[in-house]
Amino acid sequence: MTAVERLQSELGSIVSIDPVELAATRTDKSGWVAPGMPLALVRATSVPEVQAVLRIATEFRIPVVTRGTGTGLSGGACGTDGSIVLNVRGMNRILEIRPEDELAVVEPGVINQHLNDALAEHGLWFAPDPASKGFASVGGNIATNAGGLLCAKYGVTREAVLALTVVLADGRLLKTGRRTVKGVTGYDLTALLTGSEGTLGVIVEATVRARAITAGETVTLGAVFPDVALAAAASALITASRLCPAVMELIDSAALAMIAAYLGPDQTAGLPIDRGAFLLLQTDGPGALAEAEQAAAVLRAAGGEVRLADAAGGATADRLLAVRRAAHPALAAHGEVLIEDVCVPRSRMAEMFERIAEISARTGVPIPTVAHAGDGNLHPNFVIPADPGRPAGDPVVPEAIWEAAGELFRAALKLGGTLTGEHGVGVLKRRWLAEEVGDTSFDLQRQIKSVFDPLGILNPGTMFAPVS
Amino acid sequence: MTAVERLQSELGSIVSIDPVELAATRTDKSGWVAPGMPLALVRATSVPEVQAVLRIATEFRIPVVTRGTGTGLSGGACGTDGSIVLNVRGMNRILEIRPEDELAVVEPGVINQHLNDALAEHGLWFAPDPASKGFASVGGNIATNAGGLLCAKYGVTREAVLALTVVLADGRLLKTGRRTVKGVTGYDLTALLTGSEGTLGVIVEATVRARAITAGETVTLGAVFPDVALAAAASALITASRLCPAVMELIDSAALAMIAAYLGPDQTAGLPIDRGAFLLLQTDGPGALAEAEQAAAVLRAAGGEVRLADAAGGATADRLLAVRRAAHPALAAHGEVLIEDVCVPRSRMAEMFERIAEISARTGVPIPTVAHAGDGNLHPNFVIPADPGRPAGDPVVPEAIWEAAGELFRAALKLGGTLTGEHGVGVLKRRWLAEEVGDTSFDLQRQIKSVFDPLGILNPGTMFAPVS
Repeated sequence: MTAVERLQSELGSIVSIDPVELAATRTDKSGWVAPGMPLALVRATSVPEVQAVLRIATEFRIPVVTRGTGTGLSGGACGTDGSIVLNVRGMNRILEIRPEDELAVVEPGVINQHLNDALAEHGLWFAPDPASKGFASVGGNIATNAGGLLCAKYGVTREAVLALTVVLADGRLLKTGRRTVKGVTGYDLTALLTGSEGTLGVIVEATVRARAITAGETVTLGAVFPDVALAAAASALITASRLCPAVMELIDSAALAMIAAYLGPDQTAGLPIDRGAFLLLQTDGPGALAEAEQAAAVLRAAGGEVRLADAAGGATADRLLAVRRAAHPALAAHGEVLIEDVCVPRSRMAEMFERIAEISARTGVPIPTVAHAGDGNLHPNFVIPADPGRPAGDPVVPEAIWEAAGELFRAALKLGGTLTGEHGVGVLKRRWLAEEVGDTSFDLQRQIKSVFDPLGILNPGTMFAPVS
Repeated sequence: MTAVERLQSELGSIVSIDPVELAATRTDKSGWVAPGMPLALVRATSVPEVQAVLRIATEFRIPVVTRGTGTGLSGGACGTDGSIVLNVRGMNRILEIRPEDELAVVEPGVINQHLNDALAEHGLWFAPDPASKGFASVGGNIATNAGGLLCAKYGVTREAVLALTVVLADGRLLKTGRRTVKGVTGYDLTALLTGSEGTLGVIVEATVRARAITAGETVTLGAVFPDVALAAAASALITASRLCPAVMELIDSAALAMIAAYLGPDQTAGLPIDRGAFLLLQTDGPGALAEAEQAAAVLRAAGGEVRLADAAGGATADRLLAVRRAAHPALAAHGEVLIEDVCVPRSRMAEMFERIAEISARTGVPIPTVAHAGDGNLHPNFVIPADPGRPAGDPVVPEAIWEAAGELFRAALKLGGTLTGEHGVGVLKRRWLAEEVGDTSFDLQRQIKSVFDPLGILNPGTMFAPVS
């Protein structure tokens, strides 16, 4: 029996070898397309099914790519040539909500927003807030240690994961962590697995921390600056003034122009287009209004024109957040978007914007940029115009763009930053991994990978380049 | 040359073989005393010195026990027979404070409170708040992933560590993490090393997150309950009511009586002695007063007599916190104290108190208990009266007490909890490690240990029992 026959005989109709379905697994929201073709797609709906897939994969030494909703931005969960694609989006039950312990137990395919909807009935929420929350799964949030708009105040995904159940490469079940706020028995395998991008095991269940919904009002304000460096410096001043807005987003003029074109004038009235930069803040909690007023004073002193303030929240605030959330689709309307994801210390953000401008000027590539300014996390976007003449099989992102991206990464590292704040290394950034972490760490990480995955079948090529 | 001669020739006067100094390293605040005698004590003051120690230890295959201020509670940093004790408390410089990026870079021997004093000038603080903060080092906080009084609201130490520099077993230097709020490049070795109790490497530098000091007032209140189960249930109701006090401490009657005897009537007037239980809350932030009022209503409805409320903070609040902080010395005045450290989901705390009462009744051993009730983290204390007649070499904690402690751990595990919330496994709890984490996890953890420490020279016997 071949591996596919074994999968079919053990798992029946959840195994697909339909070429159209297989081809659809080869890409994600990064636009990257894995070369070749996977062997099979398995749509698992239970833990024993996942275990069966891993046992068969081990027996036949076949790579397994675990995939959720396919919303990744680094090519980290794409059906590679000859692999089994293990799709867990069908494992989408909320197994337990314990309001009294502020936790939930979920399967990996649960959509972030669905979990939030269920928690809201108990006055709770799940803090990880990627821009993709409406369609990204919690399992994927955990596999990438997803960030989003609220990290400086409410933490990254790692802080929201209490325990995991993971199927190991050989099909054994590993349980990590616990249902308690604290716990220090043994090494923190929960944290090690969070952000491991499917290279150490398959997450089949997660116990996540829920938080009490922040009491009090939310206050939104927007500020226009004559240039992006001033806006970045102003946002750093907010942090330096010991203020901690829940949201602090920065949009540069190139991105704003595209958003305006995409949303239309009704949705973007009052925003500066084609000049300067825009900073959007939300404060929350019982001191939200006072904090917003202090923030407004800081921004004005830093050269900002504070344009909008909406103490009641509501329509204006929603409109402003919608502007930010429209950034990706707005850019995507102009071509394929390579979203970069550097993160620098907050005080170095203005310098990072200078580097971006230099790289854009040198390469002639526009790089519209949005940033989670409270975190120092910038998303410089390379928009690659659709080219109907591109020969089939040619990469969408030309090497010249990757070279510009590489310059960007090195600039971030020089400023004490990282090449990925929240999207993950995946396939697209693996060539820079060792450069950031150093040879000693790289070597240890490869060895840890081997402990969990001695045969190298778990998502090979993601994070670490294949060993030739 | 012997190993000691090599240490002396390379490192000179920082190497001690004075038997009195060596003997002093054999214990910590748990009262445990390691049998035998270490080979040498090295008081390192620089990274190259630490590297030299590890290189020599590797060459001679000699165990290295890294030690800070010796305030551990699990015997995890005690000079074992034939080991080199590497004391890093002399590496106590604050290397950098970056208020604009809300971080500090410190050597491992910096005392938690000293770091807080330095940060306070910038409106910042270091959130990990163990009761030992006045004399415990930041390196030790990180090595044990220390908790304390503020975890439910402000997180454990892991959340406050951004980057580490670590000397590996062979003397190489490993750098992990970064200076940014977010970052997902590669596996989270920073989190893996946090709480690893000196078994994976020697922390020689840490970049830690500082937080803006919480704005607004602090409001303190105390409540008396007729019994500890009601107090525990009331504290769980606080969480279930979506309130999040900064501090929520529970003291049972046996502990209160000892504290009262220790501090004297002036310091403990108004507290219930020898009856019921006492719950101490502090709320903070701009909504502190409103939150305290809501908390008071919840506690009253749960059968509590809310006795103290001090909207201005100040003397009464300080006195109440001093009562809590006196718990350990008060108990220690009665004999050797074995402080246990179980943690359970908050809704199961009342049941855990029932189990403690049963175990106390069955064994005839009083178990005065204090708890970080906001975290579900209980410290049941076994007080072993001083026994001048105990033969030298006999263990201070008799096996019967360990059996009672073992019952306690199993009860916590049954309730979905852990055998150590914040003190670590050390030597004293290693025999229960596999029982909590399971064989699969235990096996992976041993293998991870081997990746970092192939010769098994890093703090052998801590966390994992020695391989016989």
